[in-house]
Amino acid sequence: MAESTPARRLRMGMVGGGEGAFIGEVHRKAAALDGQIEFVAGALAGSPEKARRSGRALGLPDDRSYPDWQAMLSGELARPENERIDFVSIVTPNHLHFEVAKAFVQAGIHVVCEKPMVHTAAQAAELARLVQEKGVVFAVTYNYSAYPLIRQARQMVLGGELGEIRRVSAEYHQGWLATAQDESNKQADWRTDPARSGMGGAIGDIGSHAEQLISCVTGLKLESLSADLSTFVPGRRLDDDASVLLRFVGGARGVLTCSQIEIGRENDLRLSVFGTKGSLSWQQENPNVLVVDLLDRPRQIYTRGGPSLGEEATAATRLPAGHPEAFIEAFANVYLGAAAHIRAKMNGQSESPLPYPTVQDGLQGVQFIEKVIESSRSSERWTAVNETAPEHSV
Amino acid sequence: MAESTPARRLRMGMVGGGEGAFIGEVHRKAAALDGQIEFVAGALAGSPEKARRSGRALGLPDDRSYPDWQAMLSGELARPENERIDFVSIVTPNHLHFEVAKAFVQAGIHVVCEKPMVHTAAQAAELARLVQEKGVVFAVTYNYSAYPLIRQARQMVLGGELGEIRRVSAEYHQGWLATAQDESNKQADWRTDPARSGMGGAIGDIGSHAEQLISCVTGLKLESLSADLSTFVPGRRLDDDASVLLRFVGGARGVLTCSQIEIGRENDLRLSVFGTKGSLSWQQENPNVLVVDLLDRPRQIYTRGGPSLGEEATAATRLPAGHPEAFIEAFANVYLGAAAHIRAKMNGQSESPLPYPTVQDGLQGVQFIEKVIESSRSSERWTAVNETAPEHSV
Amino acid sequence: MAESTPARRLRMGMVGGGEGAFIGEVHRKAAALDGQIEFVAGALAGSPEKARRSGRALGLPDDRSYPDWQAMLSGELARPENERIDFVSIVTPNHLHFEVAKAFVQAGIHVVCEKPMVHTAAQAAELARLVQEKGVVFAVTYNYSAYPLIRQARQMVLGGELGEIRRVSAEYHQGWLATAQDESNKQADWRTDPARSGMGGAIGDIGSHAEQLISCVTGLKLESLSADLSTFVPGRRLDDDASVLLRFVGGARGVLTCSQIEIGRENDLRLSVFGTKGSLSWQQENPNVLVVDLLDRPRQIYTRGGPSLGEEATAATRLPAGHPEAFIEAFANVYLGAAAHIRAKMNGQSESPLPYPTVQDGLQGVQFIEKVIESSRSSERWTAVNETAPEHSV
Amino acid sequence: MAESTPARRLRMGMVGGGEGAFIGEVHRKAAALDGQIEFVAGALAGSPEKARRSGRALGLPDDRSYPDWQAMLSGELARPENERIDFVSIVTPNHLHFEVAKAFVQAGIHVVCEKPMVHTAAQAAELARLVQEKGVVFAVTYNYSAYPLIRQARQMVLGGELGEIRRVSAEYHQGWLATAQDESNKQADWRTDPARSGMGGAIGDIGSHAEQLISCVTGLKLESLSADLSTFVPGRRLDDDASVLLRFVGGARGVLTCSQIEIGRENDLRLSVFGTKGSLSWQQENPNVLVVDLLDRPRQIYTRGGPSLGEEATAATRLPAGHPEAFIEAFANVYLGAAAHIRAKMNGQSESPLPYPTVQDGLQGVQFIEKVIESSRSSERWTAVNETAPEHSV
Repeated sequence: MAESTPARRLRMGMVGGGEGAFIGEVHRKAAALDGQIEFVAGALAGSPEKARRSGRALGLPDDRSYPDWQAMLSGELARPENERIDFVSIVTPNHLHFEVAKAFVQAGIHVVCEKPMVHTAAQAAELARLVQEKGVVFAVTYNYSAYPLIRQARQMVLGGELGEIRRVSAEYHQGWLATAQDESNKQADWRTDPARSGMGGAIGDIGSHAEQLISCVTGLKLESLSADLSTFVPGRRLDDDASVLLRFVGGARGVLTCSQIEIGRENDLRLSVFGTKGSLSWQQENPNVLVVDLLDRPRQIYTRGGPSLGEEATAATRLPAGHPEAFIEAFANVYLGAAAHIRAKMNGQSESPLPYPTVQDGLQGVQFIEKVIESSRSSERWTAVNETAPEHSV
Repeated sequence: MAESTPARRLRMGMVGGGEGAFIGEVHRKAAALDGQIEFVAGALAGSPEKARRSGRALGLPDDRSYPDWQAMLSGELARPENERIDFVSIVTPNHLHFEVAKAFVQAGIHVVCEKPMVHTAAQAAELARLVQEKGVVFAVTYNYSAYPLIRQARQMVLGGELGEIRRVSAEYHQGWLATAQDESNKQADWRTDPARSGMGGAIGDIGSHAEQLISCVTGLKLESLSADLSTFVPGRRLDDDASVLLRFVGGARGVLTCSQIEIGRENDLRLSVFGTKGSLSWQQENPNVLVVDLLDRPRQIYTRGGPSLGEEATAATRLPAGHPEAFIEAFANVYLGAAAHIRAKMNGQSESPLPYPTVQDGLQGVQFIEKVIESSRSSERWTAVNETAPEHSV
Repeated sequence: MAESTPARRLRMGMVGGGEGAFIGEVHRKAAALDGQIEFVAGALAGSPEKARRSGRALGLPDDRSYPDWQAMLSGELARPENERIDFVSIVTPNHLHFEVAKAFVQAGIHVVCEKPMVHTAAQAAELARLVQEKGVVFAVTYNYSAYPLIRQARQMVLGGELGEIRRVSAEYHQGWLATAQDESNKQADWRTDPARSGMGGAIGDIGSHAEQLISCVTGLKLESLSADLSTFVPGRRLDDDASVLLRFVGGARGVLTCSQIEIGRENDLRLSVFGTKGSLSWQQENPNVLVVDLLDRPRQIYTRGGPSLGEEATAATRLPAGHPEAFIEAFANVYLGAAAHIRAKMNGQSESPLPYPTVQDGLQGVQFIEKVIESSRSSERWTAVNETAPEHSV
Repeated sequence: MAESTPARRLRMGMVGGGEGAFIGEVHRKAAALDGQIEFVAGALAGSPEKARRSGRALGLPDDRSYPDWQAMLSGELARPENERIDFVSIVTPNHLHFEVAKAFVQAGIHVVCEKPMVHTAAQAAELARLVQEKGVVFAVTYNYSAYPLIRQARQMVLGGELGEIRRVSAEYHQGWLATAQDESNKQADWRTDPARSGMGGAIGDIGSHAEQLISCVTGLKLESLSADLSTFVPGRRLDDDASVLLRFVGGARGVLTCSQIEIGRENDLRLSVFGTKGSLSWQQENPNVLVVDLLDRPRQIYTRGGPSLGEEATAATRLPAGHPEAFIEAFANVYLGAAAHIRAKMNGQSESPLPYPTVQDGLQGVQFIEKVIESSRSSERWTAVNETAPEHSV
């Protein structure tokens, strides 16, 4: 079961996520699910009026529905410690992440931040240093890596059950940007605007999830990559399709593809890992199943909650087998991980009792996006990737 | 999107669901998910000590963690109205449902109750009359009928898209009771004890879900049935396997099977409906997909959040297509429906703005279980079923 | 690999299967596939002209393209033994099977016969006695039982790998007779005509396949059954839908359903077998996969040609794993079995080196159809089935 | 239905395919299936003794079971024309294809040849010229492109139903060479030997199928490619894994991957094509299904034999929907196409009534393999591909 005994509910503030936002609502549901976190304050939108309106719609008291994040930061710091928010969730468009995150971290407030974490590797490195210095918890919502069976996959791969890893494939198929609907759609609008989304289009929005999934399941470090970015929809300013050949330190190879113009594909993220002793495959749209193939044995289908699962998967599971868990539950696992670490720090412990993706995952993701774009503009065959060695967790 | 603007969160009390319980935890998560309901009081276990311990673990203040349901009822009624619970969730073993539900309904408190609602059709009818008399909201957590694509199926069938219905198949496959593990497992223990679970074993625990799914999707009324109940595990006191032939008013036919001894099956509930113009099929373990076959056309795969969905499915959906929703989200739809009706009543409206399974579904379910057991003991070919015509909603 | 070294190709004659026939062409392809059988003579249609025309189209010499089966029988017997047909395939509409089969068996000619073998159990018993008396090979093309993974299932069940069998489910879903298209369709025409098809509609045409699949995989003997036959399409003279509760000698239970009015279902035959130690499931439309669930172990997917298969499956396999085999190949396995037995008899051996469905399977099938129809007209709860104990093979 | 009326059976000779061979047996079954081709002569193995023994096992008369292909060529040419083979099937290891094919083409004998057709693009071009000059039929057994639903895909794409093609993905996953079993396995042995198999390992053996599938379904011409070949199994002399980025004339992009070290994957060839109006996806291991997604419409599942299929698929189909066809049937479609063209030529017509993969497909395949290997050794980002424009058919 995914819960520990709560001393009290943690208090969450939120920046972004007001009217019309998609991901903010997901964060609120994920935080609420397990009854450990209370949503108490917000600076929910870019204008004071909209922020106030959004706060009322969500039941925030007016005095904690702030007109902007600066007001929230100072307002909360002015409160007595036993009322103040314990952490802030940052769910604004990407270009605001850095500034907001930096300010809250500097104030010693824990952070849960959407991905991609920031726009540039330099910003990411600065933030990582600051997080280290301040000793705060900083989770980045690479939610897909928090699915129970991805944690099972990770435990099996790192435990050597597949042998030495030879080949990795991560695919992320979407079709919702197949036509030039960008202006009529709030989500599409900012996600395809370089100023707000960052330099990567599909590669930043979804490719970075695929990269993080490879990294967290296999622990492999990228040595070099060769990327082909495309923009198929006329007038679009960012890539909407990417194919990347990967070479890892130690000789493993891989392919990462992501596309947002594949009509009919919804949110079809897939991971396959092939080793010298076996392989595994997983699909996000059918997340309660993990396909495991060991040499010369019939295929095995592991199910969430079913037989033969390890501790990591079990710790991330709420329901018995056959009672499916899905996207929000995985997302909530990131919150449970961050919350557990925050509680641990409150109790004077430095280690997190549960895994979650950290600022190091965020940093690595931003580096990856930069290198993919660099490669796509280069005449060189391979673009070297000198990953800092993050001690990330799932 | 599934939410309306909340004036305030509804206050929920809970009877049952303490340490070691499965379904109470599901109810709490489902109630919490959408940020509209607050869990404020409980009588969580059969002994005062365990009730207190369970309350603390869940963050209830001691003064609202009651030693038993009677204390909770009187304690809450003694509170000022603006603090008192708005509704109670009843998640005890089945044999306690009737007494508890009756008391809260009589006190005018809205109820969310686990299924099967009560032990006998006489109790069910009494409760239905009382609910009618008191004008309270009474939801029964037939959670499977609240999946978005079941609501889509219902809208399509009732809207005539499949033509006249000829044949229905509902199957519910489980394997967790394939061996005599009953004593070592709290869930198995009471579910296989006639005194606590009721006269039906598998047919009551899971067969009643299958019956309600048929009823809510097709609106068909049972005319007669012919049932074969089996108990395969030596020493078990209730059926663990059932096969039922169904005849509906108007000439449609059907088969309902349920079993808890099918090794390898987890929670594999399936529904197929065949009409003169088309058919549809759905599986609970892959709930974001609805298979639709129209005469002489290629199969169509409807997806939750995808193209061509009707209002009912859309109203029950939280996330875009490809971001799977699952068991807890469907369960939460029952709570959203009950909450919406409670709010409507607070505002002086009698109609529920959202569908949810009611005391009438609960009554029909208990009648079904009784008739199945009657048939299984009868030498008659067919046992007539005189269903009261419930005006149930999904 | 499925072949033994042929001394020479066997010579096949065919009754029925001319212009516009479906199943005759399947028989010819199945017989030709493995290079062991030569199609040398035929009485291919009901009229001499059509028979001649059909023979020419198929490359038969005119002197062996006979106007009717009587002419073929006498004509072939008049030939020298080293030219004469070794066996005859009977692929006429059902009502002709008995007369033709009887005549060829009496003449000592081996037979491959379509199912259902004959119209009545009395005919079937007479034929079975005659086959025994004459010592001929008599195969009935229950082709589905010749799929490699059905043979694997049989070997596993009979070998006790699933423990004692508790529950069996066989479903056969079709939709091609959902509308009253009978007259415009040669196949539909005779299959829905009692005079030519027999007393059973769907139950005879496809239900008998389901029955044989249960019998051959589990070896269970029916003790009694309770059947509900329906005719949904107005004007149709035979059932187009059937649901049958099954009780087996020894206590196992089962459900057999078949329908030809399920729009969207093509040829969806499924078998599931549940025992005290495990279960298995198979679907004809995806025949290269067998799902195996053992207690407390992850699901295993056996594949034709893949790891862990037994001798029977291996002997029925032509291609490596992943190179799918399908309907015709399974059908050809019936021919390979009959051919192997014919060769064995030529060499003075009585045992067949390969399994195939025999006259005993045919007899049991006809008995089953009769009992289902009897039950559907009876007011008795259960209709006893006194199966003769066939020593059938797959 | 796939057949036309045969005047007489065509006479087939075979080079290679004796004892222990895999693909020769497949060719013989494919040729036999439809009753239009007779196997009458062979030079079945590398040594005269083995050739003779293989011929006897297959029922060839000794005088047409030749010790080598040269003897077969001269022996058959010495026969009267009405006995002589009509065509030869070449199923030797790859390195012998060129010499044998060239000799039979020069003698005016039609050819069916395994792929990859020859070792070098220069040989391929020479052979293509010779075929053109001699006017013979020359089929290359790119069997996967002859599946009915691949022909459906081709007709839909070329007919514009998906709009302009943007992205193509072809994957070919196998695992049978994941370990160094090469010496103990006849198939593995020659396929991993550069002298016998050619310069490409996985890319030649299976990657070339993937390339041909893209080409035949989309008609797109490669402009350039960027390939990463790997050899994972120590001691192996050829690649066993390849990833190739593709750029097509006109701006479409693609990824082709193939691997033979993916444990658990059997023969998992997949094709996806994405256009401006829709997409389609197909998997070889489940070949009777084609997934079609059109913009803003629910997914459609086309099935072989089912509704909405075009002429090409229908012409390649033998059985009704739900009666699966598979590998051998698709293979037989190549033979039916070649046979139809041979008959047409006998009747003085130059056009083939049915599609099949020709010497131009073979040439393009060899060019592709060469360019992939060139790219994998190059420091250039992209390797240009100047495809000759083949007028290939499916």
